[in-house]
Amino acid sequence: MKEPFNDDVIGRARVKDTPELEAYYKELETLGAGALWTVANDIEPWEPRTSSVPMLWKYENLRELVLKSSELVTPEQAGRRVVYLVNDKRKDVSAAVGWLYTGIQVTRPGESTSAHRHKASALRFIMEGSGGYTVVDGNKIMLEVNDFVITPNSTWHEHGVEENGKTCIWQDGLDIPLVNALEANDYAVFDGKQPLEAPLNYSPLTYGGAGLIPADKVWDKPYSPLFKYSWKSVYPALLEAAKVNEGSPYDGIIMDYTNPLTGGPVMQTMGASMQLLRAGEHTKAHKHTGSIVYQCAKGHGYSVIGGKRYDWKERDIFCVPSWVYHEHVNLSETEDACLFSFNDLPVIKSLGLYQEKAYLENNGYQKIN
Amino acid sequence: MKEPFNDDVIGRARVKDTPELEAYYKELETLGAGALWTVANDIEPWEPRTSSVPMLWKYENLRELVLKSSELVTPEQAGRRVVYLVNDKRKDVSAAVGWLYTGIQVTRPGESTSAHRHKASALRFIMEGSGGYTVVDGNKIMLEVNDFVITPNSTWHEHGVEENGKTCIWQDGLDIPLVNALEANDYAVFDGKQPLEAPLNYSPLTYGGAGLIPADKVWDKPYSPLFKYSWKSVYPALLEAAKVNEGSPYDGIIMDYTNPLTGGPVMQTMGASMQLLRAGEHTKAHKHTGSIVYQCAKGHGYSVIGGKRYDWKERDIFCVPSWVYHEHVNLSETEDACLFSFNDLPVIKSLGLYQEKAYLENNGYQKIN
Amino acid sequence: MKEPFNDDVIGRARVKDTPELEAYYKELETLGAGALWTVANDIEPWEPRTSSVPMLWKYENLRELVLKSSELVTPEQAGRRVVYLVNDKRKDVSAAVGWLYTGIQVTRPGESTSAHRHKASALRFIMEGSGGYTVVDGNKIMLEVNDFVITPNSTWHEHGVEENGKTCIWQDGLDIPLVNALEANDYAVFDGKQPLEAPLNYSPLTYGGAGLIPADKVWDKPYSPLFKYSWKSVYPALLEAAKVNEGSPYDGIIMDYTNPLTGGPVMQTMGASMQLLRAGEHTKAHKHTGSIVYQCAKGHGYSVIGGKRYDWKERDIFCVPSWVYHEHVNLSETEDACLFSFNDLPVIKSLGLYQEKAYLENNGYQKIN
Amino acid sequence: MKEPFNDDVIGRARVKDTPELEAYYKELETLGAGALWTVANDIEPWEPRTSSVPMLWKYENLRELVLKSSELVTPEQAGRRVVYLVNDKRKDVSAAVGWLYTGIQVTRPGESTSAHRHKASALRFIMEGSGGYTVVDGNKIMLEVNDFVITPNSTWHEHGVEENGKTCIWQDGLDIPLVNALEANDYAVFDGKQPLEAPLNYSPLTYGGAGLIPADKVWDKPYSPLFKYSWKSVYPALLEAAKVNEGSPYDGIIMDYTNPLTGGPVMQTMGASMQLLRAGEHTKAHKHTGSIVYQCAKGHGYSVIGGKRYDWKERDIFCVPSWVYHEHVNLSETEDACLFSFNDLPVIKSLGLYQEKAYLENNGYQKIN
Repeated sequence: MKEPFNDDVIGRARVKDTPELEAYYKELETLGAGALWTVANDIEPWEPRTSSVPMLWKYENLRELVLKSSELVTPEQAGRRVVYLVNDKRKDVSAAVGWLYTGIQVTRPGESTSAHRHKASALRFIMEGSGGYTVVDGNKIMLEVNDFVITPNSTWHEHGVEENGKTCIWQDGLDIPLVNALEANDYAVFDGKQPLEAPLNYSPLTYGGAGLIPADKVWDKPYSPLFKYSWKSVYPALLEAAKVNEGSPYDGIIMDYTNPLTGGPVMQTMGASMQLLRAGEHTKAHKHTGSIVYQCAKGHGYSVIGGKRYDWKERDIFCVPSWVYHEHVNLSETEDACLFSFNDLPVIKSLGLYQEKAYLENNGYQKIN
Repeated sequence: MKEPFNDDVIGRARVKDTPELEAYYKELETLGAGALWTVANDIEPWEPRTSSVPMLWKYENLRELVLKSSELVTPEQAGRRVVYLVNDKRKDVSAAVGWLYTGIQVTRPGESTSAHRHKASALRFIMEGSGGYTVVDGNKIMLEVNDFVITPNSTWHEHGVEENGKTCIWQDGLDIPLVNALEANDYAVFDGKQPLEAPLNYSPLTYGGAGLIPADKVWDKPYSPLFKYSWKSVYPALLEAAKVNEGSPYDGIIMDYTNPLTGGPVMQTMGASMQLLRAGEHTKAHKHTGSIVYQCAKGHGYSVIGGKRYDWKERDIFCVPSWVYHEHVNLSETEDACLFSFNDLPVIKSLGLYQEKAYLENNGYQKIN
Repeated sequence: MKEPFNDDVIGRARVKDTPELEAYYKELETLGAGALWTVANDIEPWEPRTSSVPMLWKYENLRELVLKSSELVTPEQAGRRVVYLVNDKRKDVSAAVGWLYTGIQVTRPGESTSAHRHKASALRFIMEGSGGYTVVDGNKIMLEVNDFVITPNSTWHEHGVEENGKTCIWQDGLDIPLVNALEANDYAVFDGKQPLEAPLNYSPLTYGGAGLIPADKVWDKPYSPLFKYSWKSVYPALLEAAKVNEGSPYDGIIMDYTNPLTGGPVMQTMGASMQLLRAGEHTKAHKHTGSIVYQCAKGHGYSVIGGKRYDWKERDIFCVPSWVYHEHVNLSETEDACLFSFNDLPVIKSLGLYQEKAYLENNGYQKIN
Repeated sequence: MKEPFNDDVIGRARVKDTPELEAYYKELETLGAGALWTVANDIEPWEPRTSSVPMLWKYENLRELVLKSSELVTPEQAGRRVVYLVNDKRKDVSAAVGWLYTGIQVTRPGESTSAHRHKASALRFIMEGSGGYTVVDGNKIMLEVNDFVITPNSTWHEHGVEENGKTCIWQDGLDIPLVNALEANDYAVFDGKQPLEAPLNYSPLTYGGAGLIPADKVWDKPYSPLFKYSWKSVYPALLEAAKVNEGSPYDGIIMDYTNPLTGGPVMQTMGASMQLLRAGEHTKAHKHTGSIVYQCAKGHGYSVIGGKRYDWKERDIFCVPSWVYHEHVNLSETEDACLFSFNDLPVIKSLGLYQEKAYLENNGYQKIN
């Protein structure tokens, strides 16, 4: 993409090299210093600049390999038996896009991991199976397909599948690359088995009433007390909203999963959303700062990301890097399609770095290269 | 009730009258002044002091009179056709308890009121009928029995019943006495018919998903964007919570209606709750600052308030004044009972004036006088 | 003042008495109820309505009587030796205006009061003397003329004057009437002498740097950690601001005393300000909800309040009730004048009840009756 | 430094390579995927891990080169004439430590830069000269040695020195590396000369009163309205605090520059502090997440960082990386020493990533390697 901005203007560095300057630069270098004007235009780009590329991971290709991992290694050996998805341009930090990590984890009936915790935050989106559960700080929560569950920063957590369940596969989302980059990650292994501290499904049963908070509870954690958001209540909520809302031009009917005590994101560093594209819907393109990882939860369609078309159907995963135009299309003329997504927008927004731009040409639709 | 505190201590006013002092007091009075020590012990009580008394209003007595109002006056004449409930000790301010007003409003099929607004905030709890609706700032919302709806400070609002509905009766709750006392109330009549600005039931359909907020909405009002809390979702939420919570010793399973964007009260000056008393439940007594008005939404039982028993069944209304001990009993051994309530706790808490005290004698149960 | 609004419109109660209705009202009354339309127009005024009148208390009249109190009673007898100023229309609640109490307290060298605390919040403004001090939760703070000091809700506090000081007179401001009205006040006497818990003047020395907060301190109280605001820094700050600000059309150069951790009011229920009227300044009139008590800290002038002129000079105290037009005049053509004031605006604003209206006629200046 | 944690435990990845696994890994790679257990122990470190090293830049070495830049390039050519200081391990991102950039800028009398803005936030600390100024969004502010000034995210800003001033040198601090890493930076050049929108020094004269905020101002920006913190008021505030505080064991008397409207950091992404080490003071060692850049503003001493001694005197600059032990020593037995510093703690704290650990051995003092 051609850079539309010109560095040959007042206010940009326009110094030509001379022998005298080159000597000067060498002298600076010996002191652990440099001349700003030699790097300024590079480190002060005209517009936000991403180092990731859009990517799509087809589940039909990955599924077999994911299941194979359960034959190759045990959870005890692997810590967690996960195939992670890595951006072609972010292999150095094991990120799927920007500073977000994502992986696909498989657990067989009767298996469970040991408990651990870390400063990185984690979330899961259930793709397959039954009888799966997560334990978060002593709260065991049963999971079904398309449920969304959080295991926030520094909570003890472990996962498993009941003996009578079916092999579970879920997507993990973590901010490990970000927390590492911020030089703040840590890790601890739970000593022994994590004891249950509340009845089964305590969190969703207690905090899952719309607009209702237990009057006798105190919650002082910086993340949502609601650990699970059930597909069986999320999908109907989207259908209800669709009755009376035109929806976002860029995202259709889109709901953020929120902390019911703040209306803000479920955790401090990652947000998540579920969006519904109505039959035949084709949204307009926009771009914004912040990275997003998507999973198709229902239906099929495609997204145009940075001018290229990526076709997806149920369980496919794809990503949109920061400041790259994107638009979504539901290819069915009769059924709706749903996209789950998670993002680093809480970071971008809390630091004052969010900006957004609509694609103005061609009535808002990108030309596909 | 005997005052347990003694004013004959250092730190309390203990000045005896003398002729010299009496002359002094008169001189002060001519200047618009007085000696603090003549009033100090009175205006600085040892413990919070209420001027209200507990009261119970039996619906079986009131219902006929409420309905009769619909024969005696029209909504056009009355503004609103309401029977209000007044505390024996608060008639001067038309309050049911403390600074809270409550009334029972009746609307017949095909009737509707004109729209108005005021700095006082209002809420309703539906008691009878079908086809009732409220319009809040251009949002028309259909109401069913036991639904809770808000019409916040300075929103235009009006009520009515569809032609094909059945006569509706609901409880109004307002902070009119408080806002008058704070010398801040106002009133305006809408010029003409309030136009609808959103599809029917827009607010509950858009904001009624548990833990979900539309990603593309901006809300900058100091009250909840969710205007209606449906009994059909509130009651199941209480049942769910009852599965995994012991509940409050004083209130059983109790949920606050909250603003999903803040986790706080639905409006700045009034809060509301729904509580479930399990079959046979008898809560312990406590007292706290802040006044409460209750309506029995389901079942039957009694409350002990200030040492006196008040029996209630569905639709009965009663009040608990500030700093008066109260406990609740569900008299059924097989069915749960539900109490709706509204209160001024957002005021008391935001001003730093909340305190609470458990009743410690007799295992927490008051002796009934 | 003639009411500019007409109750004979749709949306107001316009029911005429009939024998049938009168019988109905009596029946309602026996049930602790009434017909709303008989009181609605009264309890729902068109505009905010105050029950206070503007008043001015001349210090030259009061001073002698205040000093005389120190001959008539001891601090031990009186609790606190205070002459309080009472609004002609608020004698029932001992308020100077609205729900605000004010008084003038005198303490002689070597005297000190015992410590106590209450849910009511208090503030002082020093009028005369030297060597005075306040102890707030174990923090002793020395006070000079025109200093402003707070003793927040539930802090232990006591006052005194050092042996080598001069008789101190200060103005007390409290929200006792409000906290009583909200049925939430309490009182406790400190058992024995309050021990000092920090070095002398700890609070202002630690938190008194502009824009500076100790990096190693944690403060979780709902009031300012800065207990004293010194005239010797407040007055220069006003002069600095006057160099580069036109000031408010209604108040000249006006600064709120704020909590440096929130930018908000010093306490949850009362705010305070210092304003500077430049030589010859005559501000325009406006009115707003919320009550204010003023003390002239410097200079002389007058205020027009509700169309009547009130002349003030140093140490005079006056009040402006809610929703009454007021404007201020500095009568000196060469010297500035300063008005200290405290108010209940934190209550009015946190409850969403603030509104303001400029006086539009006569170029913004009231006609004096 | 030997890693104190053992990866050969349950909960860590402990998979041995086999030919079958190696084939599996290759297959994953072709799909843009990998096996988490091959990288897990690396991306999930036991403790926070920095990629920076401690460094010290001696001003006596740099000063001449900095001044020389003013002979080699003009501000017009260079954009800004700055020598930047770069960490030996962060040259790829032009950072002094972590994600913080710092540089030394020189401006001669009569010179001024053109105005620009960017999503990166900036701050300056004045090292030498007189007559220097910054213009922030139309506010021109005069600067003196040891003054601290901010030019927040997206404000238009430019710098200069008056014709009659003396060559100014100041330290710049920016979060450019962070904002680039978050893929959110942008840049714009002001079209023409930035017009002044307020009187000279408007911001510090208006918002510089301790605990005072203009009652008639509204401020809705996410950064401090106080743009300059003057040494002439900061240093006395530290001396006052030193009278009544023991200070932090790790930092002596330390004050954060704060936003007077929030008590929080001056900007969303960078904080700054001034600390005073009393004569002879030797603080104890601790480590925490977050990076810090220091400049000695007064006196001389040394810091022990990661077990190595770094001697500093006035104007020297040094850095402490995340999670590296550090302690400070004032080498004078008679004079205090002051360290200015700026940091990324607002990022670390707002994202829930702050942790701190005291050095427990050897009475809290590191052994110097």
